[in-house]
Amino acid sequence: MIVQQRLTLSTQGRGTYDITAQVEAVVRGAGIAAGLCHVFCHHTSASLILCENADPTVRRDLEGFLARLIPDGDRGFDHTDEGPDDMPAHVRAILTKMDLTLPVTGGHCALGTWQGVYLYEHRTRAHQRQVTVTVSGD
Amino acid sequence: MIVQQRLTLSTQGRGTYDITAQVEAVVRGAGIAAGLCHVFCHHTSASLILCENADPTVRRDLEGFLARLIPDGDRGFDHTDEGPDDMPAHVRAILTKMDLTLPVTGGHCALGTWQGVYLYEHRTRAHQRQVTVTVSGD
Amino acid sequence: MIVQQRLTLSTQGRGTYDITAQVEAVVRGAGIAAGLCHVFCHHTSASLILCENADPTVRRDLEGFLARLIPDGDRGFDHTDEGPDDMPAHVRAILTKMDLTLPVTGGHCALGTWQGVYLYEHRTRAHQRQVTVTVSGD
Repeated sequence: MIVQQRLTLSTQGRGTYDITAQVEAVVRGAGIAAGLCHVFCHHTSASLILCENADPTVRRDLEGFLARLIPDGDRGFDHTDEGPDDMPAHVRAILTKMDLTLPVTGGHCALGTWQGVYLYEHRTRAHQRQVTVTVSGD
Repeated sequence: MIVQQRLTLSTQGRGTYDITAQVEAVVRGAGIAAGLCHVFCHHTSASLILCENADPTVRRDLEGFLARLIPDGDRGFDHTDEGPDDMPAHVRAILTKMDLTLPVTGGHCALGTWQGVYLYEHRTRAHQRQVTVTVSGD
Repeated sequence: MIVQQRLTLSTQGRGTYDITAQVEAVVRGAGIAAGLCHVFCHHTSASLILCENADPTVRRDLEGFLARLIPDGDRGFDHTDEGPDDMPAHVRAILTKMDLTLPVTGGHCALGTWQGVYLYEHRTRAHQRQVTVTVSGD
C-alpha cells in the first residue's frame, strides 16, 4: 500500500525547522504497520536532515560549521544570480541531501530517541517549501 | 509492484552527467502510479546527486568546491594506487552518496522544477558506470 | 511484502565496522526476489556508509579526512556536554547520513563488487548501536 501527501512548509530564512510531528502525522494516518516513510524536498537550496532533537546548540553549531565550510559570498563561486547565499545554498543542500527514508514499525516512524526530522532552509530569506511524504508497506 | 532496470552509462571523466530522462523513462515504463523510484550507483568513486538543472555554472561551482575541499594528490591520503584522484574520488562519493530515492506521483518522477538527477563521475578518466533503477508502488 | 529486523551492534569506538554480511543475511532470509533493502541507524552520532571494501587504507584515509575537516575539540563548537568528540560526531553523522537504501535483485543485495556496507561510529568510546533493516518487494 502507498499513501502520499504533499506538505507546504514556510521558513523564516536560513535554519532548521522541526517537521517530525508533521511527518509522523502522515505515517499514523496511513494505517501502515510496517514499511518505509520517504520524505522528499522538491528544491535545490533546502534539504532534509536527521539531527539531535534535545539541545538546540547542536543545530546552531551545525549551522556555524556549514557557514565556515561554505562561506556566503565565497569568491570561488560564479553562480551568484540570487545573491551571496545562492551557490552556498546549493552546495549545502547537496551535502545534506534532499531525500530521507525512515523505517515504519508498529504504525509509526521508528526514529531513535534523539533523532528529529528537520527541514533545513539554506537561503537567508524566507521561502515556502514543498515536501512530499510517501509511506509504503503492509 | 516492482520494476527494476540496470542502466550502463559512459562517462568522459570527472563531472556531472544528467540522467533525469533515463530515470524518468524507467518510471514511465513501469506503469506505477504512486510510489518510489530508487536510483543506485554500483561504484565507490561515482555518485548520484540532485542538482539545479538550469544554469551549468552551478555544477561547475560545485565541482570547484569539491576540488578545493578534497584536493587531488593531497598528501594526507595514503591510498593512491590508481593515482592522485583515487582517494579523493572515494571521499567525494561518500559525501555525495550513491543512493537516491525520489517520489513517484501520477506515474512520473515528482521532481521539483529545478531538480535534475546527475551521475557524478569523480575519477578524472572515462568510465562505464552501472546504475540500477527500482520503481516500487501501486 | 515487508520483512523488518533490528540489529544490535557493538562498536569499539571511532571507526568503520563492516556489516555487509549481517545486512545480506536479513535480505536472504526475507525471501524477496526484487525490491529494496533499507538500512537505518537510530542514532545521531553514528552513521551508515557504502565504502570500498578491499583496501583498509581507504577507510583510514576517510577517517583522517573527516578528522581534519571536523576536528575534535574545535573551539567553534559550543555543544561539548559529552566531550570534544560530541559535536564533531553529530556533524560527521549528518554529512555521511544515517539512512541507506540498496537494491535487492535475485534475492540478494545488489551491491557493486567493491561496495561494502559500514556502520561508522563517530564517538571515540565504545557504544551499542541499533540498526533496522527493512526489506520490501515481491
